[in-house]
Parts: sequence; C-alpha cells; structure tokens
Amino acid sequence: MKIKIICLGKSKQKFIEDGIKEYQKRISKYAKIELNILPDIALTKTNTIEIVKNKEAEILEKHLIKDDFIIVLDEKGKQFTSLEFSKYISKINKNIIFMVGGVYGISEKILKKTNLILSFSNFTFTHQMIRLILMEQLYRAFSISEGKKYHY
Amino acid sequence: MKIKIICLGKSKQKFIEDGIKEYQKRISKYAKIELNILPDIALTKTNTIEIVKNKEAEILEKHLIKDDFIIVLDEKGKQFTSLEFSKYISKINKNIIFMVGGVYGISEKILKKTNLILSFSNFTFTHQMIRLILMEQLYRAFSISEGKKYHY
Repeated sequence: MKIKIICLGKSKQKFIEDGIKEYQKRISKYAKIELNILPDIALTKTNTIEIVKNKEAEILEKHLIKDDFIIVLDEKGKQFTSLEFSKYISKINKNIIFMVGGVYGISEKILKKTNLILSFSNFTFTHQMIRLILMEQLYRAFSISEGKKYHY
Repeated sequence: MKIKIICLGKSKQKFIEDGIKEYQKRISKYAKIELNILPDIALTKTNTIEIVKNKEAEILEKHLIKDDFIIVLDEKGKQFTSLEFSKYISKINKNIIFMVGGVYGISEKILKKTNLILSFSNFTFTHQMIRLILMEQLYRAFSISEGKKYHY
C-alpha cells in the first residue's frame, strides 16, 4: 500500500514539521508514505475566500488519481474511533491519497470527488495541526492493524 | 483568570514540548497559565493498570482545589465545537484546572470530582498529543473570545 498526503501551504511552525517527520518515519515501517506540500493561494483584495478555494481546488484536482482511494479531511466528515479507522484503512486495497485543504478549508468540488470525507473532531484545528493529527492517527491505525500495543 | 494544566508523565517527544511552549506563550497574553507535569507511575509486575490508575489518582487528588473549576480530559467526555468551547470557557468565573491522565487514562475517582469531562475526539490520542491539542484549543478559545480571526 502506498499513501500520499497532499497538503496546501508550507508549515510555519517548526514543531509541526518535526512531529510530521517523526511519524512519517514511523509509518514508513508499515507503508510507503509520501508527503506532498503544494503552494497555497494567498487571500488578497481580488482573491476572496471563494476564489482562493476555487484556485486551490484546481491545484488539488491535478493530484486526484482515478484508481486511488481519495480521503479528504473536512470538519463535516465522518468520525471514527481509532480502532474503526484502523479497520477501515486496512480494508482498502488501493493506494490512498489524503487531502488536507488550505487555511479556508476545501472546495465542495473536491469533496464531491472523494471516497471518504473524514473528520477528526467537532473542534476546529488549524490546517497545520490537522496534518500532525492525521500522521499520528495513521501511525496508530497501522500499529493497531499489526496488533501492536500503542502506548508511550 | 488563572489556568493550571496538570499532566502525568514527562513529554518524551521534543516536538510536543516545543509546541506546548509555543502555545503557552501565546495563551499567556490572555490568561495566567501554568503547566504542571507530575511524575507518572510505571507499569510493573506488581503495578497493574488498575493500581497505576489508583496511584495516579492519589497524586492528582492533591492538586484538586475545591474552589477551582476542574476540567478533566477523557474520551468519554463531552464534545464541543471550538466556538462552543470558547463560550463555555469565557463564562467560568473561577480559576480553571485541566487534568490530563497518564498512559492508561484517568481513574473514575477523579472523574467523579470534576465539573466537566471534556473529549476532543472519538479518536484516541496519546496522553502526550492531547496536551498539545488542549493548548491549541485553549489558544483558539481565547482568540475567539477576543474577537480575533484565528487563522495562519
């Protein structure tokens, strides 16, 4: 299984970058994992939030691979327990693409083209923090599948 | 308002420590915030999970201040949106103590003595990650109360 994580906008907080690297290393024992951080679109006088989201959708669309299983992170998505998520992931017999939107979230256009919309919480997290949370839960999902106790 | 966060067990991941420090600094613009990391109890042949939780409960109990508002983090707790949480926090006219359990969670004894049991997600996070998530959401809660747009 190959996992690709597509994000928008460079990480501006070093601890998030460090945390992502740590989990990327851990996950790589279980699956090929690739992190792809694409440039996001800045909000300006002419670029309204709607325009930003549309332009970002165009960028993301180029990375949708038809035969892959597409999971988009969005507050309105389905919530799992870690165990449920682990079981769900382990049943997917395709490469998985996770997409994390930019500062203003992800366009409806993209949401319509996905296999799963996933939500980690009723709380809102920054689009940066959610990457770290995704990595930790992916690592946890694989650990659970491998029958390892996940504790430290 | 004064906020005290009581955790069990030193942080073993540097990125988590760095992240907590960053948010502690940010939150300190809005409220006095103190982080108190107490030593946790190790699991051994004689210390079963139940014994660990009981011993940890004894440690935590000493830090319960009667007149303070006690919020304990636990998976079985109440979930909020960030906006609801911000409103909830801003209405508390007392000092707040947040308690985060150890590796095996928090004892029922402590859960019974709290004003609120709070859950961030259906997903399970490490007791370390949850500290970082708590700090980020506290910062977000204060930013929302202050009418600031919370984006970066």
